[in-house]
Amino acid sequence: MSSSLTNHQVRLAKRPEGTATRENWKFTTELVGEPAEGGVLVKTLSLSLDPAMRGWLNDAKSYIAPVAIDEVMRAGGVGRVIASKNPQFAVGDTVYGTLGVQEYMLIPEDQLKRNGLVKIDLRVGTITQWLNVLGMPGMTGYFGLMDVGQPKAGETVVVSGAAGAVGQTVGQLARIKGCRVVGIAGGAAKCDWVVKELGFDACIDYKAGAGAVREGLKAHCPKGVDIYFDNVGGEILDAVLARLARKARVIICGAISQYNNANSMPGAGPKNYLSLLVNRARMEGIVVFDYADRYPIAIAELAGYLKDGRMKSKEDIVKGLDTFPESLNKLFAGENFGKLVLEVAQD
Amino acid sequence: MSSSLTNHQVRLAKRPEGTATRENWKFTTELVGEPAEGGVLVKTLSLSLDPAMRGWLNDAKSYIAPVAIDEVMRAGGVGRVIASKNPQFAVGDTVYGTLGVQEYMLIPEDQLKRNGLVKIDLRVGTITQWLNVLGMPGMTGYFGLMDVGQPKAGETVVVSGAAGAVGQTVGQLARIKGCRVVGIAGGAAKCDWVVKELGFDACIDYKAGAGAVREGLKAHCPKGVDIYFDNVGGEILDAVLARLARKARVIICGAISQYNNANSMPGAGPKNYLSLLVNRARMEGIVVFDYADRYPIAIAELAGYLKDGRMKSKEDIVKGLDTFPESLNKLFAGENFGKLVLEVAQD
Repeated sequence: MSSSLTNHQVRLAKRPEGTATRENWKFTTELVGEPAEGGVLVKTLSLSLDPAMRGWLNDAKSYIAPVAIDEVMRAGGVGRVIASKNPQFAVGDTVYGTLGVQEYMLIPEDQLKRNGLVKIDLRVGTITQWLNVLGMPGMTGYFGLMDVGQPKAGETVVVSGAAGAVGQTVGQLARIKGCRVVGIAGGAAKCDWVVKELGFDACIDYKAGAGAVREGLKAHCPKGVDIYFDNVGGEILDAVLARLARKARVIICGAISQYNNANSMPGAGPKNYLSLLVNRARMEGIVVFDYADRYPIAIAELAGYLKDGRMKSKEDIVKGLDTFPESLNKLFAGENFGKLVLEVAQD
Repeated sequence: MSSSLTNHQVRLAKRPEGTATRENWKFTTELVGEPAEGGVLVKTLSLSLDPAMRGWLNDAKSYIAPVAIDEVMRAGGVGRVIASKNPQFAVGDTVYGTLGVQEYMLIPEDQLKRNGLVKIDLRVGTITQWLNVLGMPGMTGYFGLMDVGQPKAGETVVVSGAAGAVGQTVGQLARIKGCRVVGIAGGAAKCDWVVKELGFDACIDYKAGAGAVREGLKAHCPKGVDIYFDNVGGEILDAVLARLARKARVIICGAISQYNNANSMPGAGPKNYLSLLVNRARMEGIVVFDYADRYPIAIAELAGYLKDGRMKSKEDIVKGLDTFPESLNKLFAGENFGKLVLEVAQD
């Protein structure tokens, strides 16, 4: 049955220098096979589009191997089991896993663990929430803030990319923990939403002109910044470093402003890093996979906040596998409003 | 009696842009007064010359107020009490305090604590050792390595400025704690001394040509760098960031390569800082004054190592208050070999 299905896929054709364009990708089709003993066949419903994807295209040592040339582009996603020869997965189960940018994924038994395939419960959250606050961005925000940031009630927390997937979790969670929360986002609409809908204490529009971030931090963080959750790097990181409070914690989660630098060369570093010395502050990197054992605890807590209304989520849904090249680039142009999700098939 | 003594002083005349030269200083003389009730008069014996002094000349927010124009230049030093109206200090006591670049310091009672004046015991260490491993550099190295770095036996520790005051303490202490220790220093003589006399496992000569640090780290830290104690900043910091091991700790103690940047503008930041993310690593600043309560514990431990020969110290002694402007600059040219001490008067 499933062997007669056609799988459309997006593969990496050529490593990009700078921004990836359509010519860096190739579109392939192949017939879907049947799962072997112990294997599972999953139909992709929605995929997570993340800034980190740009990093996976560079042939450089990182926390994860680069996507190989001709390989199906790596992506986490939610799908439905449509054939199974594994007692742990039944036809009809909704699952999260590294499904890749393709319509179907056949996962042999010995790849299930590496794939990270797990059943998810749509009564706990919607498909898109499972890719957002209950998925990798939520886990990244949760463990980055709680484990590395260690927020205390009354502290001032600043988060960049505040309207993005990680940022919305971080800011709302910090608020729930009793912190004063200041977001940084691009444009008045995002800033309004972050303050009015998510309940941040303030949000700085970094597109509001030169000096907007510096002035905004001065106005909204009069006692300095205790925790900075950095998703963007570049000049915004430098501006926040200049306003650190004593014993501040800077969580390095990403640097979306730098990911498209040509030849995967690093851009300028944070020239105000000596603020770490002056303020006895700490800057620390986080990779979410390290916390996989504790995802269930975080999911349970965050799902509770979604249920009781203390936390909201927003996803920006784009449709169709064929839009993948342009859809991905929305992230780097800051065009997405909320967690960017690629709907591959309707549920 | 002491009121008839003449005090020679070095004061800040003009803030330097870039390297401080003789014209940034002025030499003054004034009569020394008698201590008032509760006060103490100290004769300077030797002063500590430190890279941090350059930072104190900038009119910028830092961990300590800038030296004011016309103020006697701030300096820590060892002196002898020559008049006292305070029961805690007797004539003849050897003391450590913020004596300033001058021959005598009259300290009123209400300034004693702020000055940090404490009695020291020359049976525990020599005057120059009290400015080195038993003084601020030693305390900086001790608490930076132990509290921020948290070394574990078998880990690889890299320290820049390895032949300098802080570096020699850090490297020897790390070795005593069972770590593999790699120094970075300027020139073959310093590197030889660090390996042969101090027992470092290796030392990289950063003056040995382009790529020397990168290649040296590759050769001597095959499993990456677990702890980097950074005294220099700049390109060396970047080279080490590129070699961090998982969960590495980078201690930011100073950035001597950057201190003479004109207009006290920060130089380039560490462009490889995203290595913190990839390696889940941490970069943290240290200011020694935060650990003042625990100096006695550190001094006791380090003095024990000096006594049993497990730790050595080396000081580079220059003489005469009038050489201060040029003597200070030896630090930034890397011309000192060991802790730089300015002998103002013979004991």
